[in-house]
Amino acid sequence: MISKNQAKYLKALSSKKQRRLSGEFLVQGEKNILELLGSTLEVVEIYCTDSFKELHNDLLSHHSVIETTAQQLSQVSTLTANSDAIAIVKQPVHEAFQPKGLILALDDVNDPGNLGTIIRLADWYGVSDILISEQTADVYNPKTISATMGAFTRVKTHRVDLKQSLQTINLPIYGAFLGGDNVHNNNFEQSGVIVMGNESHGISDDISSLITKKVTIPSYGHSESLNVAMATGIILDNARRILSNN
Amino acid sequence: MISKNQAKYLKALSSKKQRRLSGEFLVQGEKNILELLGSTLEVVEIYCTDSFKELHNDLLSHHSVIETTAQQLSQVSTLTANSDAIAIVKQPVHEAFQPKGLILALDDVNDPGNLGTIIRLADWYGVSDILISEQTADVYNPKTISATMGAFTRVKTHRVDLKQSLQTINLPIYGAFLGGDNVHNNNFEQSGVIVMGNESHGISDDISSLITKKVTIPSYGHSESLNVAMATGIILDNARRILSNN
Repeated sequence: MISKNQAKYLKALSSKKQRRLSGEFLVQGEKNILELLGSTLEVVEIYCTDSFKELHNDLLSHHSVIETTAQQLSQVSTLTANSDAIAIVKQPVHEAFQPKGLILALDDVNDPGNLGTIIRLADWYGVSDILISEQTADVYNPKTISATMGAFTRVKTHRVDLKQSLQTINLPIYGAFLGGDNVHNNNFEQSGVIVMGNESHGISDDISSLITKKVTIPSYGHSESLNVAMATGIILDNARRILSNN
Repeated sequence: MISKNQAKYLKALSSKKQRRLSGEFLVQGEKNILELLGSTLEVVEIYCTDSFKELHNDLLSHHSVIETTAQQLSQVSTLTANSDAIAIVKQPVHEAFQPKGLILALDDVNDPGNLGTIIRLADWYGVSDILISEQTADVYNPKTISATMGAFTRVKTHRVDLKQSLQTINLPIYGAFLGGDNVHNNNFEQSGVIVMGNESHGISDDISSLITKKVTIPSYGHSESLNVAMATGIILDNARRILSNN
């Protein structure tokens, strides 16, 4: 069972402040937990139901496991329903970042769900590193982790001073803007940074001045915009298609 | 001000049952309300703040407007914050559907947010009609309307017996599957139906047998899947690119 103190700590990890203090975060739900157990991330503790433990005994054998009920799990979970497991995990420290291949950079993407979706997309399109600006949402927010669908175990995020980082990277820097080159015909280089901007304001002026190539997703109808995660997916799909035909 | 009875009716329109009984639905927030006022949809009543009315007096002059406070609006709204307006709108009756151009068909897309995002995408990519199966989420769910970002005023959705409809449409029927043709090199015809499946189970067996061309979004990394709305966006982007190059 989960003790009162344990429940309190699990709840506390919903807050950014506590995550920063402890350097730990929560992973919840079957899909994300299974990806976690197959990764090299350091698991502090896992709370799971009897049936989950029985089903995945081999994966859990090296971990500190506390069995509990689905009801207790749902009480401490931030997911609406969680009848599987919840884990406390150490935030990884990534090695210095190598500017090679396709890289994403997020300039103040505010919504944790969008950030998680972008991490999942990066994993699909073979982008292993994402630079995130200081104002971008917290990678370890439970909503972000949930939206990654396990990709948080593979894609490395680097919180940086984005302007400074982009100034020191000697690669083409692409940015999504209105009135740029049609992303369908753009010539993406094998290595380059793709910058995506804030949900409301797009790419900031500071970062705009560092963009070497503006790209645009062509519209064939009436909507004025696409969601930032959607735009990221469509740009990455075009970049990979063009690179694999070169 | 909003009377008790009015507040009760606004709240009731959050439920599918009430929307079906009355044939009305809610539109909320500045962006969606402005798109609504610029459309041919029949507005029953608009509740808005003084400042919203002042700002958009010309658009509101032909409507039944009830002024209220931001606080009252937020209380009756299903949005977390709504300091602009909320409207009661008649559900439109669309003309018989013409099978021409690119058409989307949704086979039990369950999540209202995904449905709304797909409607917004359809609008971006010039798809004017979407066939939706009986089990697909309600188009008039406030979450769906909100996610369309105004596209609900332009894209026509048709709730149908999907199997029967697809059987009578004499067009190529594309479906997203694992192991289909690479969507980057697929030959889309100028007219055709693109079928997208349920979030968990994909396209049902009944509908699968009607697909004439299976297409796949290639992966370059490790994620096992993309969200259905994301996959819809990427397939539509490829279809429009290929069609505009033909």
